[in-house]
Amino acid sequence: VTAADGEPSGARGLLRDLAREVGDEHVLAEPDLLAGYTTDWTRRYAGGALCAVRPGSAGQVAAVLRACAGYSAAVVPQGGNTGLVGGSVPPGDGSRGRGVVVLSTRRLRDLGPVDPLAAQVTAGAGVTIADLRAHAAAAGLAYGVNLASRESATVGGTIATNAGGINTIRYGATRSQLLGIEAVLADGSIVSRLSGLAADNVGYDLAQLLAGSEGTLAVITTARLRLWPAEPAAVTLLAGVDGIAAAAALHAEIRALAPGLRAAEYVEAAGVELVRELTGLPAPLSRPAPAYLLAEISGSADEAERLAALPSLARAAVAMDAAGRAALWAYRERHTEAISALGIPHKMDVAVPLARIAAFRAELDQAVRAAANGAGGAGPAPRVFVFGHIGAGNLHVNVLGPDPADGTVDEAVMRLAAVHGGTISAEHGIGRAKAGLLHLSRSPAEIAAMRAVKAALDPGDLLNPGVLLPG
Amino acid sequence: VTAADGEPSGARGLLRDLAREVGDEHVLAEPDLLAGYTTDWTRRYAGGALCAVRPGSAGQVAAVLRACAGYSAAVVPQGGNTGLVGGSVPPGDGSRGRGVVVLSTRRLRDLGPVDPLAAQVTAGAGVTIADLRAHAAAAGLAYGVNLASRESATVGGTIATNAGGINTIRYGATRSQLLGIEAVLADGSIVSRLSGLAADNVGYDLAQLLAGSEGTLAVITTARLRLWPAEPAAVTLLAGVDGIAAAAALHAEIRALAPGLRAAEYVEAAGVELVRELTGLPAPLSRPAPAYLLAEISGSADEAERLAALPSLARAAVAMDAAGRAALWAYRERHTEAISALGIPHKMDVAVPLARIAAFRAELDQAVRAAANGAGGAGPAPRVFVFGHIGAGNLHVNVLGPDPADGTVDEAVMRLAAVHGGTISAEHGIGRAKAGLLHLSRSPAEIAAMRAVKAALDPGDLLNPGVLLPG
Repeated sequence: VTAADGEPSGARGLLRDLAREVGDEHVLAEPDLLAGYTTDWTRRYAGGALCAVRPGSAGQVAAVLRACAGYSAAVVPQGGNTGLVGGSVPPGDGSRGRGVVVLSTRRLRDLGPVDPLAAQVTAGAGVTIADLRAHAAAAGLAYGVNLASRESATVGGTIATNAGGINTIRYGATRSQLLGIEAVLADGSIVSRLSGLAADNVGYDLAQLLAGSEGTLAVITTARLRLWPAEPAAVTLLAGVDGIAAAAALHAEIRALAPGLRAAEYVEAAGVELVRELTGLPAPLSRPAPAYLLAEISGSADEAERLAALPSLARAAVAMDAAGRAALWAYRERHTEAISALGIPHKMDVAVPLARIAAFRAELDQAVRAAANGAGGAGPAPRVFVFGHIGAGNLHVNVLGPDPADGTVDEAVMRLAAVHGGTISAEHGIGRAKAGLLHLSRSPAEIAAMRAVKAALDPGDLLNPGVLLPG
Repeated sequence: VTAADGEPSGARGLLRDLAREVGDEHVLAEPDLLAGYTTDWTRRYAGGALCAVRPGSAGQVAAVLRACAGYSAAVVPQGGNTGLVGGSVPPGDGSRGRGVVVLSTRRLRDLGPVDPLAAQVTAGAGVTIADLRAHAAAAGLAYGVNLASRESATVGGTIATNAGGINTIRYGATRSQLLGIEAVLADGSIVSRLSGLAADNVGYDLAQLLAGSEGTLAVITTARLRLWPAEPAAVTLLAGVDGIAAAAALHAEIRALAPGLRAAEYVEAAGVELVRELTGLPAPLSRPAPAYLLAEISGSADEAERLAALPSLARAAVAMDAAGRAALWAYRERHTEAISALGIPHKMDVAVPLARIAAFRAELDQAVRAAANGAGGAGPAPRVFVFGHIGAGNLHVNVLGPDPADGTVDEAVMRLAAVHGGTISAEHGIGRAKAGLLHLSRSPAEIAAMRAVKAALDPGDLLNPGVLLPG
C-alpha cells in the first residue's frame, strides 16, 4: 500500500500499520478499489476514505480499531453495504476522508455447523443472509429474517441495523434472532458470548444493546443465532379492502383466527397498477379494490378452508402452490422495481400506531403536495405510493416527482408520522440520512441517554461518528 | 412521618422531603410497616432501610429520586418483591439502612384499555401479572409471560428482571413482550415511549437495555406490552425418557413436528416421587421411567394424533381436557412445594447449552457431594432434585441437606454450569445473591462494558448499588 501523493505522513503511517495487521492485500487505498466501499448501493450517499480495510478475524478487527484510535481516524463499519440511510459509508463532507477508514466485515465468513438440538448456529458477521438461510435449510431449519437484499446483506450488518423484512410479525426482527454476540469495542476489547443459551439472565444484554446501534458502539464480528423449524406449507391470500383501516382490521381478524400468520402486507391500487404495467400481470381480483391485504399463513388446506369462511375473504384470491403464491407476492414485491422504473423516488420508512394509521394515510397526500409546492416545486405533481408491513404499522412511502436531492418532502412525511405518534424509521434505521431528524422520534431525555451510552462505550467517538446521533 | 429516635437530621430531612413529594401516608418508616419492604418473600434476604416510599406517578418517582440523590441515599426499586436473588431488598450489611430508601412501584397500577387492532396494552409498573393476564383475556387476547408468582409479581419487576416462566419457548421472556417503556433515570429525567410501535428502529433500544437491568439503571414506571391471540386448545403430554439427553432430543423432535409447541419441561423420577408423596397422585405412567418430558402443544385433536405417531411417544400420557392437563402439570408444578416440605433447599437456576446438558447432569451429583463434604458437611447426604425448562437448557437445581446459610454447594453448581459453557442465572437474575460470582458468566471485558453503561446512566450509583455488579 502506498499513500496517494499529497497524503500527510500520518495517513501513510496508518496505512502502514493497517497493512501490517491485516496484510497488504486487505488494505484498499486505490480509488478504483476503494469506490465500492465509499458509495452506498443506492448511490445517494458517498464520501471519501483513506482506505478500506478487510480484517479476517476478531483479533484483526481489534488491531485495526487500536491502530485507527492511535491516529484519531474514524472507523466506518460496513457489512453488505445494502443500507438505505447512508450508515455504512463515510460522510460526504468534502474532507476527502483522510481521517476515515472503512472497516469491511465481509471476510468474516465462518459459518458453524447447525446445532439441531438447540436449533442454533454461529455465523460470522460477513456471512450473507442468503448463505445463512441456505445453510439452515440444509439442516431442515429456517432463519427468521428474510429481506430483498438477502444476497448481499450480511449477518453483521443486519444485526447492526436490526433489519426487519417480510416475516417480522412471525419471527420478530433481527434482534429477536440474537442469542449471543462477539464484538470488538472501541477500545479494542473483545466481548464474546457465543455459547448459545436461550436463557441467560446475567445483567445488561450487550447483544441487544448492539442490535440497531448502527456501528456506533462496536464492530460485530460473530453472532449466535436462533433458527426455527422449517416453514411448513403456507396459504397465501390477497384480499381487496376499502382502505388502510380495513386492511388493518382484516389483518387483526386473520391473526385471531390463524396463529400461523407469518406475513401481512398492504398495497394500494396505484402501486398494483404500476406493477401490472411493468410486468403485464393480470388484475389480481375480478373486482378491483382501492387497496389490498396480502397475507401468508403457515398451515394446511384445513387452514385455508377455515379462513375462507371469513366473510371478508369471500372474494379473496387464495393460493397454496408455489407458483400461485409467487404470483400473488409479485403484486407486492415488484413495487420497488416498478416505481424506480419511473424515476428516482423519495423513500420513507415510517411506522404509525395502527389506531392512527388511517388518519396518517388520509393526510399523507396533502402533506406531500404542500411540501412539494412549498419547495418551489414547479415540476410534475408528486405521485405517492404506499405499501408495507401492515402488522407493524410500517409503511414505505415512495414519492415520485420532487427533486430527489431535496429533502423537504421526506421531512414532511416523517413529521406527519411523528404527529400521529409514529416513528421516522420503522426498519431502515437512522444512518446519516435522518440523524438530524432524530428529535422527531426521540425526546431530549432519550437522546441524552443514548449519548451517555455512546460516550461510555466509545469516548473518543471513533466508531461511525455522525451516524445515528447528530454531531 | 417522624424519624425514629437517634436518626441523624439528614435522615429526618429526607423523610420530610419525601413526605412532601408523595404524601405522608406513602412514606413508611415505622418498623412494622417497613418490614414487608426490607425482607424478601423467601426470608433469605433482609436489610435495613430508612423508609419505604410509594410514589403514585412517574413524576413522583422522579421527585423521589431527586430527593434521595440530594441526600446521597441509595434507592432500592421494588415491585412485587417476589425475586429469588435478593435484588429488591436493601443490603443486610448491618448499617441499619440509614442511607437506603425502598421505592415501591406497587401504586403505579394504571392499566389501559386493550388495543385490539395492534394487540397491545399499556400497563403501570405495579400491575400484577395475574391482573394483566386477566385484562388481556377479557379482550380475547393473552399475555405471553406466565409464572408461579403471577399474583404478586408486577409488570415493572418482571421487566427489570426479564422474567421467564413456562411459556418462554413459545413467546420469549419478558424482554420479548416489550414494545416500549416509561422509566425514570437516576438524574430524575423521564424517558417515555409508549406509542406501541412494533417496528421502531431509532437507535439504542432503551427498553431492551432496561430489561434485565435489575433496577440498577432506572425505575420502570409503565410499559407498552405485546399481547397474543388467545391460546387455542392444547395437547399436554408426559413421556418417559431415559435421561436428560433423551428429553432434549425428544423435545427437538416434537418441535420439528409441532410449530405450536409452547412448553417443554423436564422432571426426574426423584422429584416425581416426592410430588406423589405430597399429593397422593398415582404414578404418571404404567411403566416408571428415570425422567420425564412434559410438553404442551397448541393444537387440536389432529395435532395429538400426529404426535402420537412418534414412536417415542407411544407410551406417553396425553390429555386434552383441562382436568387431565392439570393432572399432568401437577407432576411438574408441585416440585417446589414438595421439596420445601422437607426443608429449606439450596435453589440454583442455571442453563447449559443443550449439547452439553447431559455431561453437566452426569457430573452434578458428584459435584454437589464433594462441595457438601468439603464444607465439613457432617449432616445428611445431600439430595439433588433437577427440573426445569428443557427447551432453553434451563435447569432448576434444588439441593436438600447442606446448611442453607452455606453457599458452598450453590457455588459448586454454578461453577459446574460455567465449565460446561452455561450460565449462573437462566432466569432469576443476579441480584445480591450472585453479584460476587458474576465473573463465572461474564468476561472482564463484558463486566467492564456493563460498568461503563452503569456509570453513564447512574454516575452517582444511586440505583440499587451492590445488585448485579459487585461493589
